[in-house]
Amino acid sequence: MSDASERVRASFAKQAFMQLLGAELTHVAPGEVDITLPFRSDLVQQHGFLHAGVSAAIADSACGYAALSLMPADSAVLSVEFKMNMLAPAKGAKFVARGRIVRAGKTITVVRGEVVAVGDDESSKVVVELLGTMMTVRGKGLTD
Amino acid sequence: MSDASERVRASFAKQAFMQLLGAELTHVAPGEVDITLPFRSDLVQQHGFLHAGVSAAIADSACGYAALSLMPADSAVLSVEFKMNMLAPAKGAKFVARGRIVRAGKTITVVRGEVVAVGDDESSKVVVELLGTMMTVRGKGLTD
Amino acid sequence: MSDASERVRASFAKQAFMQLLGAELTHVAPGEVDITLPFRSDLVQQHGFLHAGVSAAIADSACGYAALSLMPADSAVLSVEFKMNMLAPAKGAKFVARGRIVRAGKTITVVRGEVVAVGDDESSKVVVELLGTMMTVRGKGLTD
Amino acid sequence: MSDASERVRASFAKQAFMQLLGAELTHVAPGEVDITLPFRSDLVQQHGFLHAGVSAAIADSACGYAALSLMPADSAVLSVEFKMNMLAPAKGAKFVARGRIVRAGKTITVVRGEVVAVGDDESSKVVVELLGTMMTVRGKGLTD
Repeated sequence: MSDASERVRASFAKQAFMQLLGAELTHVAPGEVDITLPFRSDLVQQHGFLHAGVSAAIADSACGYAALSLMPADSAVLSVEFKMNMLAPAKGAKFVARGRIVRAGKTITVVRGEVVAVGDDESSKVVVELLGTMMTVRGKGLTD
Repeated sequence: MSDASERVRASFAKQAFMQLLGAELTHVAPGEVDITLPFRSDLVQQHGFLHAGVSAAIADSACGYAALSLMPADSAVLSVEFKMNMLAPAKGAKFVARGRIVRAGKTITVVRGEVVAVGDDESSKVVVELLGTMMTVRGKGLTD
Repeated sequence: MSDASERVRASFAKQAFMQLLGAELTHVAPGEVDITLPFRSDLVQQHGFLHAGVSAAIADSACGYAALSLMPADSAVLSVEFKMNMLAPAKGAKFVARGRIVRAGKTITVVRGEVVAVGDDESSKVVVELLGTMMTVRGKGLTD
Repeated sequence: MSDASERVRASFAKQAFMQLLGAELTHVAPGEVDITLPFRSDLVQQHGFLHAGVSAAIADSACGYAALSLMPADSAVLSVEFKMNMLAPAKGAKFVARGRIVRAGKTITVVRGEVVAVGDDESSKVVVELLGTMMTVRGKGLTD
């Protein structure tokens, strides 16, 4: 496991909210992070679909860690902003958030994310598309 | 309590995810909804601040219900998209998400949201700013 | 030329602003529209790069027409919202805005756009990434 | 006139695209910039309304200069990203883009913008709402 991958895994382990959701890191590579979340009935909005805030949480974390995976070792990542389109009702047996890099810069990294709903029959459908901005923070005491 | 307010409260009660977070409806008026969330240590990201996904969840719900409060009685509200800027670390004893209307249209309602972090000393700071789009859905079997 | 392609071309011809910019439709297919703009020194911001508003104009138009190309014949397209990230200085001999479909729905179409800067040596670089929302409007007197 | 105001005016004068549009700086104060644009028939989209790209241009410039007005003297401003909602058809005798500060930070400044359409009878209507991110760039040879 590379140093970057270890840093991502160590940081993810500190995200108590990911544990509350039951989300797991299922893919870490340079510039690529996937987070997988099994459906649970306490994660829904009023129509019984996954709450958009849950999608936001796993997509933002996947994108942030995709960005962190390319940053210098002493860096922390901050979410500056993100924008999400909900493409379809988030209905599935599990959800996979994929964070990818659009462009990695010294200070600013632009990220793209999607949340894929996977059915019991392994059919899959993209339900959320995200475009966001991450920032590299160095030497400020944040220990990613 | 007005019919619109009752509809918002009934719908909120079905959002199991709001209960998991410990979030409560604390203000409902035409075009205005506030959701309040006490801090809990299982809602954090890696630096110990409220996870951006939690902010997204309460801000999106507050904005969606602000939009719903102005819709015809047989309508449901769908989040089309939203964009959030994280202004400062989300650190506080509680958080208040305020959803407000920028423009209410027949099909599309544009909403503005903010998340305010409130300290133990009642000091407050806006930590998230949101601009989003909600859609009115009628006669489709979604019962908000 | 298909009906949809003809509708896109006829509507583009009415966009006086595209003519002021010197922009041309260079690709029209179902769900795909490209607009090409030669660089001109009166299209710049203070550092001599293409103004972000010019990128926005060609990317929004390309995405709107990509959406229109999939809509019923009596429809008009409205831009609901878009979000753009500027990835690099927009410096080039010409710029190509590519509008593509993320998901086409009955009322809402989600679009993705990019602006590619092309150098004198035909090198190319993506300088803008866009994620936006278009709406189908029918029977309201808007013609295209 | 303050130094900051002079810097904004000097930089605006270099934006050739603002001259092509016929846009003028009509208000500059710390954290506040307005740009005014008289309607012209060559600035329209296919339905005869102001093109969203023109709104984007004046709103982005107003927001960028609002941010620059609070930055150290040796800084340049870069647009990282912005998101715009179109609230109503941009129809008017003139348009005023207002750029304001949501939060000014050392590196990142979050901005809010709006475009107001003003009629011949001085009636006014907000037609665009913008939320965006600007970055302070120092000592890199960008001058303003």
